[in-house]
Amino acid sequence: MNSKDIISEIVGSNDITSVMFVGCGASKGELYPAKYFLDHNAKNLQVSHYTANEFNFATPANLGSSTIVISASLGGTTPETVKSNSIAKEHGAHVITLTRAEGSPLTVDADYTIVHRFAESYSAKLEKMGYALELAVEILNQVEGYEYYPDMIDGLNRIYDFCDDAVKTVEKDAKYFAEQYKDAPGIYVMSSGATAEVAYSSSVCLMMEMQWINSGNFHSGEFFHGPFEIVEKDVPFILFMNEGSTRPLDARALTFLQRFDAKVTTLDALDFGLSSAVKKTVVDYFNPFVITAVFRVYAEQLAIARQHPLTKRRYMWKLEY
Amino acid sequence: MNSKDIISEIVGSNDITSVMFVGCGASKGELYPAKYFLDHNAKNLQVSHYTANEFNFATPANLGSSTIVISASLGGTTPETVKSNSIAKEHGAHVITLTRAEGSPLTVDADYTIVHRFAESYSAKLEKMGYALELAVEILNQVEGYEYYPDMIDGLNRIYDFCDDAVKTVEKDAKYFAEQYKDAPGIYVMSSGATAEVAYSSSVCLMMEMQWINSGNFHSGEFFHGPFEIVEKDVPFILFMNEGSTRPLDARALTFLQRFDAKVTTLDALDFGLSSAVKKTVVDYFNPFVITAVFRVYAEQLAIARQHPLTKRRYMWKLEY
Repeated sequence: MNSKDIISEIVGSNDITSVMFVGCGASKGELYPAKYFLDHNAKNLQVSHYTANEFNFATPANLGSSTIVISASLGGTTPETVKSNSIAKEHGAHVITLTRAEGSPLTVDADYTIVHRFAESYSAKLEKMGYALELAVEILNQVEGYEYYPDMIDGLNRIYDFCDDAVKTVEKDAKYFAEQYKDAPGIYVMSSGATAEVAYSSSVCLMMEMQWINSGNFHSGEFFHGPFEIVEKDVPFILFMNEGSTRPLDARALTFLQRFDAKVTTLDALDFGLSSAVKKTVVDYFNPFVITAVFRVYAEQLAIARQHPLTKRRYMWKLEY
Repeated sequence: MNSKDIISEIVGSNDITSVMFVGCGASKGELYPAKYFLDHNAKNLQVSHYTANEFNFATPANLGSSTIVISASLGGTTPETVKSNSIAKEHGAHVITLTRAEGSPLTVDADYTIVHRFAESYSAKLEKMGYALELAVEILNQVEGYEYYPDMIDGLNRIYDFCDDAVKTVEKDAKYFAEQYKDAPGIYVMSSGATAEVAYSSSVCLMMEMQWINSGNFHSGEFFHGPFEIVEKDVPFILFMNEGSTRPLDARALTFLQRFDAKVTTLDALDFGLSSAVKKTVVDYFNPFVITAVFRVYAEQLAIARQHPLTKRRYMWKLEY
């Protein structure tokens, strides 16, 4: 069943007033563009986004039969998110869950499961984010109406091929980045808009979890209200630059970083021509796709340069905690 | 005009359907408990929270005459937040602003200004957070009704004296912390629930901005989905532990940190007897007050041990950017 039909079935017989996105770590981050889209465009819908155990232990009062819960877990076994689906179902919410693992524990209490791919290609890694956004677009359009619905659908149809093309162009830059950053004791990551949580997950997952590199992350708009005092010559930053509404925030941060000789690597959606592939009316929401795809290549090259595979763990998959 | 009368005047002649919190840096963080309270308790109200320039450059579609915007800036001159008030007013929203500086640029486009204290005492530093929460409680109670309204009002009446008492007991622990952490190359800060953005602002403002110490921050519930792989013997962490709903998330993180011999300092609301001062029905929302008050003492001691005053800056107040 596709996103449109799922939402149509739910909306057809229920008065939907709230949408909650629930996940952990990278999966939480991948739900953010959908949350950001609804937060910025919904006229009436309540929209929220939780790490799963906060949803479980401090369950929001409005959870109920007027709620759609969209949850995600790559392997479908994250215990906190499995529990969230169960709590959501107990409250009578409509649960749509995203996972690569059909029949996994995550799917037990879900009313609808969307199975996405992951390892097959760079664009396959974007499907979780893409399905979440597609669901958000369908919810908004079917519940309230959405002026740029055709532009979003067109963008969703084009974005995967666009990203697969983008990654083909970056190997040289990614290798240069890896050489420059391989001995960095810590790396900061920032972005804005719909890409804010790509910065978050690149920091806590790709850097801290998968490379054991110290890292912090923040919103480009917040940079000037605290974090920028850490800037000195050669302090390492990664800046994800967006096309669209929040570009001036990213550009202002870049100007500052360059002025004080920070070590800065930018991944810029404009360099890949994002707005030639998707309409300017909706370009904001597609930045996280191209940035996620391209930064994966950078992370892979960093892993090679550091001889530290992205799959290496101290604790995860190894012990109970 | 007090919070109750302000909200009563707005709600008396308008159908309020959304509340937006807008600020930068520490001021953004201090609005979070109010946002968290509404997010977890509102049945119908839309609730959102923006760094000011994201609000300005990617203005949400629902901003209008049914919106209350609550903004904050300590000195009342933060250009981004001043601009937010102006945008909010242009859209017909009801603007309530919090500042210590009566007559500052921030107040020009505000329909209501609440002047708070700051430097007078540890509890005075909490007034911005307190007024924001009080406004949120009044909005919820007057628009939808709120079962624990009397408990919240009682808590708001008690919390300032409670925090002034709490800070009197921590000097010895704060000095010990400062000695232990003064040479740390980086410090991680985490918490959960309403205190999540106290961890955020402690990391980006107190550590990065005011001490030039590398720092990262995350939600205790997210710790196990990425950041925990950085844990080794002696990696420095600060954990803010909450009383109430999300305590199990903080406690689980503590158990892990101790198991692997991280260098961990906990500030625990339970140690100060928070739930003896405020009702258990609403204790969740008062954790950020006691943690903010107490951690200020820790930061002050760290500044002394490092001979780096909290007011020292490289860039802020010194140049245009």
